[in-house]
Amino acid sequence: MTRDARYDVLFDPVRIGPVTTKNRFYQVPHCNGMGYRDPTSHAAMRAIKAEGGWGVVCTEQVEIHPTGDIGPFIELRNWSDQDVPALARVAEAIHAHGALAGLQLAHNGMNAPNLTSREIPFGPADLPVFSVFNDPVQARAMDKADIRALRHWHRSAALRTKNAGYDLTYVYAGKLFGGAMFFLSRRFNQRTDEYGGSLENRCRLLKELLEDTKDAVGDTMAVACRISVDELMGEEGIHAAEAQDIVGHLAELPDLWDLTLSSWDNDSQTSRFADEAYQEPFVTGIKKLTTKPVVGVGRFTSPDTMVRMVRQGILDLIGAARPSIADPFLPKKIEDGRLEEIRECIGCNICVSGDHTMSPIRCTQNPAMGEEWRRGWHPERIRPRESEGRVLVVGAGPAGLEAAMMLGRRGYEVALAEATRDLGGRLVGERRLPGLSAWGRVVDYRVGRIADMADVEVYRESRLTAEDVLGFGFDHVAVATGARWRADGVGRRILRPLPVAEGAAVLTPDDLIAGRRPPAGPVVIFDDDHYYMGGVLAELLVREGRAVTLVTPTGEASSWMEMTMEQHKVQARLLELGVEIVPHRVLAAIGADAVDLACAYTGRVVHREAASVVLVTARLPEKGLADDLEARSDAFADAGLKSVTRIGDALAPGTIAAAVWAGRRYAEELDAPPRGLDDLPYRREVAELAAGPLPWRTPA
Amino acid sequence: MTRDARYDVLFDPVRIGPVTTKNRFYQVPHCNGMGYRDPTSHAAMRAIKAEGGWGVVCTEQVEIHPTGDIGPFIELRNWSDQDVPALARVAEAIHAHGALAGLQLAHNGMNAPNLTSREIPFGPADLPVFSVFNDPVQARAMDKADIRALRHWHRSAALRTKNAGYDLTYVYAGKLFGGAMFFLSRRFNQRTDEYGGSLENRCRLLKELLEDTKDAVGDTMAVACRISVDELMGEEGIHAAEAQDIVGHLAELPDLWDLTLSSWDNDSQTSRFADEAYQEPFVTGIKKLTTKPVVGVGRFTSPDTMVRMVRQGILDLIGAARPSIADPFLPKKIEDGRLEEIRECIGCNICVSGDHTMSPIRCTQNPAMGEEWRRGWHPERIRPRESEGRVLVVGAGPAGLEAAMMLGRRGYEVALAEATRDLGGRLVGERRLPGLSAWGRVVDYRVGRIADMADVEVYRESRLTAEDVLGFGFDHVAVATGARWRADGVGRRILRPLPVAEGAAVLTPDDLIAGRRPPAGPVVIFDDDHYYMGGVLAELLVREGRAVTLVTPTGEASSWMEMTMEQHKVQARLLELGVEIVPHRVLAAIGADAVDLACAYTGRVVHREAASVVLVTARLPEKGLADDLEARSDAFADAGLKSVTRIGDALAPGTIAAAVWAGRRYAEELDAPPRGLDDLPYRREVAELAAGPLPWRTPA
Repeated sequence: MTRDARYDVLFDPVRIGPVTTKNRFYQVPHCNGMGYRDPTSHAAMRAIKAEGGWGVVCTEQVEIHPTGDIGPFIELRNWSDQDVPALARVAEAIHAHGALAGLQLAHNGMNAPNLTSREIPFGPADLPVFSVFNDPVQARAMDKADIRALRHWHRSAALRTKNAGYDLTYVYAGKLFGGAMFFLSRRFNQRTDEYGGSLENRCRLLKELLEDTKDAVGDTMAVACRISVDELMGEEGIHAAEAQDIVGHLAELPDLWDLTLSSWDNDSQTSRFADEAYQEPFVTGIKKLTTKPVVGVGRFTSPDTMVRMVRQGILDLIGAARPSIADPFLPKKIEDGRLEEIRECIGCNICVSGDHTMSPIRCTQNPAMGEEWRRGWHPERIRPRESEGRVLVVGAGPAGLEAAMMLGRRGYEVALAEATRDLGGRLVGERRLPGLSAWGRVVDYRVGRIADMADVEVYRESRLTAEDVLGFGFDHVAVATGARWRADGVGRRILRPLPVAEGAAVLTPDDLIAGRRPPAGPVVIFDDDHYYMGGVLAELLVREGRAVTLVTPTGEASSWMEMTMEQHKVQARLLELGVEIVPHRVLAAIGADAVDLACAYTGRVVHREAASVVLVTARLPEKGLADDLEARSDAFADAGLKSVTRIGDALAPGTIAAAVWAGRRYAEELDAPPRGLDDLPYRREVAELAAGPLPWRTPA
Repeated sequence: MTRDARYDVLFDPVRIGPVTTKNRFYQVPHCNGMGYRDPTSHAAMRAIKAEGGWGVVCTEQVEIHPTGDIGPFIELRNWSDQDVPALARVAEAIHAHGALAGLQLAHNGMNAPNLTSREIPFGPADLPVFSVFNDPVQARAMDKADIRALRHWHRSAALRTKNAGYDLTYVYAGKLFGGAMFFLSRRFNQRTDEYGGSLENRCRLLKELLEDTKDAVGDTMAVACRISVDELMGEEGIHAAEAQDIVGHLAELPDLWDLTLSSWDNDSQTSRFADEAYQEPFVTGIKKLTTKPVVGVGRFTSPDTMVRMVRQGILDLIGAARPSIADPFLPKKIEDGRLEEIRECIGCNICVSGDHTMSPIRCTQNPAMGEEWRRGWHPERIRPRESEGRVLVVGAGPAGLEAAMMLGRRGYEVALAEATRDLGGRLVGERRLPGLSAWGRVVDYRVGRIADMADVEVYRESRLTAEDVLGFGFDHVAVATGARWRADGVGRRILRPLPVAEGAAVLTPDDLIAGRRPPAGPVVIFDDDHYYMGGVLAELLVREGRAVTLVTPTGEASSWMEMTMEQHKVQARLLELGVEIVPHRVLAAIGADAVDLACAYTGRVVHREAASVVLVTARLPEKGLADDLEARSDAFADAGLKSVTRIGDALAPGTIAAAVWAGRRYAEELDAPPRGLDDLPYRREVAELAAGPLPWRTPA
């Protein structure tokens, strides 16, 4: 196939200072939970982006000095020459596929609690650090010597970046990460010297860093400036008009403007809270203030939207973090005219949870994310089949769809049997819940790909028994029958079934998703799951006019969504809709018209009216078919059956991302040489032990 | 000096299976935030313990397999031979000083969310993982193949431990970390097979692991069993009687019993909530069930208590984690009869915050902790002075006391000038607050050491002006004048002074500590600090009979104390004392008899009666003297003054640990060769880049 001519503009080369990108696809810096710990994993992930056609591929923010140490988060480091080999490996990986390599230098200033280095953080003022965990650390107001030191470190880091082979680097003043943003901000910067007060003064540090960086490496490298154009907090924050003043003031100094919103949760909003291109009103108008190219983001997955951004003069370069994670081959697919093959980002931010849990980035849509080197997975390719084996996949949820699709791609003959009429498993219902419609892309992409495969047959309304399975003669069976929510209260805080009074109305998420509704009267949702389900169901019911109380043993509604940066937005929405949120309470008993709630701290029980209770606690895998087959294992040989494997929620209920990953893993491991018990499932890198004198070898 | 004969029993050798420890001082396993990332830092820290006289020095819990991956926490790993060099380095470091090296093998089972490995966690049942962050991950019930695999991995890890040179290893079934504990537990283990039900069945997995480990390495290595003897939750948890049944059942199988409470927050209680030897009632009686030696902990710093534990037949070995962190030389000081030199643990758990923030362990009492290799600090020794310079230290708080003491130890002539009559700075008042008396040990230890030093003179009631300082003729001045709490509301959420009505009663922690009290009527404490101060002052006032409301923008009182494992205990105590806790509210305005509180999510403001407001927000460094001196810098040369340096809270307000560390750093760096701007402040290790084929070098 060839590309549609209306997308040609996306493949224009764009000059960025001394370098030129081959097209307008620009992978903006994004964190990944691998950083300095897993350099080759990281490099391989960026290489895949380059292979997929991105013209520019950047690292995440890279620490330039221990005074800007943002541990516990794990990003790349560029503290000294000791870091250059790892940085160079990433650049080499990006270059191997013809992209420009960008590295985002960052000194986080008063965002950095310096828990690792123990150095005193610094910023415009004597104030507590602005860090995630409210660490008991205060920053100190920078003096002129500090500013000189910071400029020196930034320059040294830029030179190391050049030595490591990069084409582009950054001065970072965005998202309340890049430390220079605290100087731009009127509320943080109340200095009375030449670095505070007027816009010109507040821009001075940023300007100096840009000048230093241009001076140090600008002859061969592009120097980008990343700022936040709005903090979405009104006059107290940086807002669009002020951002235009900043860009106007520094207009031609950087080679590129990279525009974000602040803070990160506003820049990377999920599909539950914002649509594609939601940054448009904030970045519109910036381009006319500078002749330099402008890149911006907006969870772009539609080439038509991308073209519009360029045609309307809003952006020069189509920035993407999440869309490039969900589909590293997005540019290539547009280039090849394979639009229907684009694996669109669902906007769930499970990727972000990697950074927040210091674990390798994962993606609901792209199970290869983070596995490129350590397990050798590729988002598009998989090795051909190694036998004539025929495979039955039972259950067309996220795990089953992914397994069937990838086995089909390997060339196996696959039958995908689904008990119901609909494909998608849990997503059939969940995509209809408030705010989750984009999650349906997980299903649509896979159903679409499978439809094109001659060797994958889909059988709907085909609930199978063990007898059926044994009769079909498949070589391998993947049991992807999903899970169901428990109705007995058992979960994290409660390990034995709750006392339930006769006549009490108890529902589970499965009930609500299936369309059942509680009887009239106040509804208590008990959320001991803490991911999205409790909050989404509260939203569903309150929008239907019900009086809803959300009870949680934690301090917040949907508390795990801190990891996806949605918790704040969820709680605000629920409160605005009138949901009452009762934190720090554990459900102790369910009566016919009331519940007992025990304080999570003191155990003190209070009684509360409730006409019904929705239990969002734990799930149980649907093991029925697998157990029935297991019980007939002596018949496998006669039936020609070589393996039966539970995958996804049917093995252990988890996220949709985990289910998709499990489907991919099944497809990867079929016919693979068996792993010995002592073989690890993946490669890794470990710390290189210091050479040189060791204190205990030369006791005093 | 020589040791008191009544402590002789502490120096008896004790046989532990095939090895013998030279004395009864046993550093039990403890986390340290360095683990697999910082192996040489870790090794050097353990070496110092051995040097300090501990007979046995153990690692933290060490992951044995990626299916028991407890990321984001950073512990040592023993997954494969790739880890052996780092493990061997730790053992070598311990052996260099004649201690036995112990390694705690751990497979955390359903405590492990496996965020890094993405493997499915497993345990006795299909249940959500029991992890810190309520991760959306469920464990699966182990089948017989899983149990076989786990036993294999444990055995393999034990063999690698032997190859790495250890003398002792563990089977871990404690604290709800060691996975076998979930099998011991009646509430987690409701299995109906031979691994569930009866005590014998619930012990089966632990027994098998012990047998396997003994079989694999027991010929030359001791095999310890670590269990929890009480979960402090009544009949639902493991309790003392049940623990006795467990020990009775497995009595002679391990070579050593290591006893803890569960969960970790109960085992490592702070001085605010428990006294030395608080585990005594729970471990008493265990010894009579086994002939094997028994080790237990209790924040032991008193040799008399230790002797009593042995004499009364409660323990054979004096276990310690925190006391060995605060004073790695505790055994040697007892041995040498230098009891007054013991740096007693204050029980603040700032050490634990290292593990919880994935950063190197630190200690309020021992600033060298975590710095042994990377900065070359030793808890007892420091290099001699390098000039005849005389040093004035202004301010006898934690930073000033530490600086004066360590400079004195280096041989400098030091004057320590304190404005007030009392030594201790902020601790003079804070040690009198509820629950904080043990924190006074920071002062008492240093004041005691300084009293013995001929070259350190202490001047009380000596508030100095710049003029005074210039007149004295010192070569160096350390300004350690501390900080004061802000009275304008500025802190983390509020960056501009709050509107305060005429006549409103506004107090700061400094006011309360100085003995001032709010006028009659309800008191609102606004806590935007989130460490201990807000909760402690609430406790102070409520105990004095005041009606107290604690308002916080976070979800919990003293929310950062999650990091010291005290948050739960603080909130329970406050609730039980009748403090009202109002979460998720930001102070918006202070009226004469009421406050405005804005919802942290919606901004909606509510009005609430308040006769007074206590602001616990941020602090400001006391820079006055330093600024005055700075303004006179042209007079330095004539005065013979070579340097003026702000340290501790006077530079940037932080924890007491940070202030002590700053004092140490000042003493370390005086006369040190100046560091260039490109010289990093410490050594570190980075990941060794993988060799071998890299995917981007062989594009498909």
